[in-house]
Amino acid sequence: MNINGRHYRTIWEMRERQVAIIDQTRLPHEFEIIRLQTMADAANAIRTMQVRGAPCIGATAAYGVALAMAANPGDVALDHALKSLGATRPTAVNLHWALEEMKTAVSPLAPDARAEAAFKRAREICDEDVEICRSIGEHGLAIIEAIAAKKDGEAVQILTHCNAGWLATVDWGTALAPIYMAHDKGIAVHVWVDETRPRLQGAALTAFELGAHGVPHHVITDNAGGLLMREGRVDMAIVGTDRVASNGDVANKIGTYLKALAAHDNAVPFYVALPHTTIDWSLSKGEEIPIEERSEDEVLKVRGRTSLGTVQEVAIAAPESPAFNPGFDVTPARLVTGFITERGVTEASHEGLLRLYPERS
Amino acid sequence: MNINGRHYRTIWEMRERQVAIIDQTRLPHEFEIIRLQTMADAANAIRTMQVRGAPCIGATAAYGVALAMAANPGDVALDHALKSLGATRPTAVNLHWALEEMKTAVSPLAPDARAEAAFKRAREICDEDVEICRSIGEHGLAIIEAIAAKKDGEAVQILTHCNAGWLATVDWGTALAPIYMAHDKGIAVHVWVDETRPRLQGAALTAFELGAHGVPHHVITDNAGGLLMREGRVDMAIVGTDRVASNGDVANKIGTYLKALAAHDNAVPFYVALPHTTIDWSLSKGEEIPIEERSEDEVLKVRGRTSLGTVQEVAIAAPESPAFNPGFDVTPARLVTGFITERGVTEASHEGLLRLYPERS
Repeated sequence: MNINGRHYRTIWEMRERQVAIIDQTRLPHEFEIIRLQTMADAANAIRTMQVRGAPCIGATAAYGVALAMAANPGDVALDHALKSLGATRPTAVNLHWALEEMKTAVSPLAPDARAEAAFKRAREICDEDVEICRSIGEHGLAIIEAIAAKKDGEAVQILTHCNAGWLATVDWGTALAPIYMAHDKGIAVHVWVDETRPRLQGAALTAFELGAHGVPHHVITDNAGGLLMREGRVDMAIVGTDRVASNGDVANKIGTYLKALAAHDNAVPFYVALPHTTIDWSLSKGEEIPIEERSEDEVLKVRGRTSLGTVQEVAIAAPESPAFNPGFDVTPARLVTGFITERGVTEASHEGLLRLYPERS
Repeated sequence: MNINGRHYRTIWEMRERQVAIIDQTRLPHEFEIIRLQTMADAANAIRTMQVRGAPCIGATAAYGVALAMAANPGDVALDHALKSLGATRPTAVNLHWALEEMKTAVSPLAPDARAEAAFKRAREICDEDVEICRSIGEHGLAIIEAIAAKKDGEAVQILTHCNAGWLATVDWGTALAPIYMAHDKGIAVHVWVDETRPRLQGAALTAFELGAHGVPHHVITDNAGGLLMREGRVDMAIVGTDRVASNGDVANKIGTYLKALAAHDNAVPFYVALPHTTIDWSLSKGEEIPIEERSEDEVLKVRGRTSLGTVQEVAIAAPESPAFNPGFDVTPARLVTGFITERGVTEASHEGLLRLYPERS
């Protein structure tokens, strides 16, 4: 999507087998492009969340393998790259999907053919992701249009959590793709943006994206969505996901479950937007999804802009108090109104998923 | 309760008819005691939230009247004090109750008897509040003891939201009183402290209180409680309240409703601790409770300590994005396991409240 009128993807190739990303840890305060020169750079970018969002992580991991092959196309180096990149973020299933794709594309080849093939496959993974997100956007658009038809020109009120916009993918986004399409089509939409503590991806990234594209929105604390739903001020919720179990249980950013409960309690439709790569067919239910526990510093400290425009980290809690910081929670399928995928909309159940992906039955 | 082994109340008398408070706007970053020398000092402390929490506000207002009488015990000065103090936080129920009590105690007396009587009544109001909170603590303690009996020495895991501790009252607190009593009695307890955005009363005040008194706890984001409950890591939740309607619906800090939903979904007991003064018998249901909308800056900016130890405010959201900031939400009575009051524990319903307060029927 656009920033200041210029189109960007979240990851792209530069000259001489180097890859560029937008450093998402600096948004919205600073806009900085980082050059990934080695596999270790790519792994570090994923680990430190310079890139985040399941599809964007997958694309970066794919390029990480390509960078490894450019440096050393041997079997040991390939194995090392797959292992190192695979260990960066335990909850993201796209990461492992992308690494498996890269392994399949690269490992049968003679070493001197591997680098070129790896870059080619990484490029394809990115282009495929853009097409998938565009399709998700079109299927979700139909849902927004149906709500808009009943609102007589009043804005469709949509709540989202974390960032499942174009910054979380290669372009378009998952949860935000339908919103961008509706807005571009002239349908009045307004987005309630959960700030999404601890890392504030909503306040920082989703608000940044929506603002840059001109979509009306308000940032709210993660605490506020329940009240808004009770007051009838939310027409639908759309979120992304990091991993979906084959029964339709949804792992997503911590706090998603609370919003799904509130949506259910107030009969607000709650949709989860995802590409097929986010479905983990090997898991029978959400309880099997590993939940990443992250640093307590993410809770105890907050980064922001001072009045002088510099970026500063401040400690918010009582000095001696420890924190606990689980990164994700699991929303049971019973609370999800439907999945929006690149193949269409379906109910959150094993049967629903198989209807769209019969090749998995 | 204790700070570094020394006992404090939130407000106390010093020599020569002066009053001391802890400046709660500086916690947890700085611990500073402020001397209130005049009625205007007391009014300012309430207005600027150096003291907050309904019972603590009431006690400060009572001493404000006493300070006014010490300076000038005439009728005009008394009337001026009652009006000035009454205008500081117009929505605080206890403030008006305390001023009415002071007026009744002071106005019938000859001027030269008023100062002494006013200090005496202010002292009584504080002591009565401590006794009410102690009773709440004892009734809540029985609930914690019953859970502890099934845990075989493992810590009872208690989640709380916002600050309903001793800093919000004169001593003990409401929601935290049972926790302090359990801890002091040697029952193993551990508290999950919701940070409570936007003003972070959990991370700043509740964590400070618990840490200073030695109660084990972890700060968590407001998003994390649902996961913890799903994982069986919360034995009970206790929160305070700003106003309870006569049907048992509970207004409390924004986000309380989401935790009550999660507790209900996971069969975790969800208790609300309150003194009888918080029940608004004139309201038939929660929908009638007005929800205060506060400044968007509370969402868009966060205050904390820099690494140099100074206190700094930083902007967290995308620069052009607006915010929306409702201060409270309403938790329907059906999600509340019980009320813990100074008269005992009862179910969250009109019948339950009348059982404890039959004089209201």
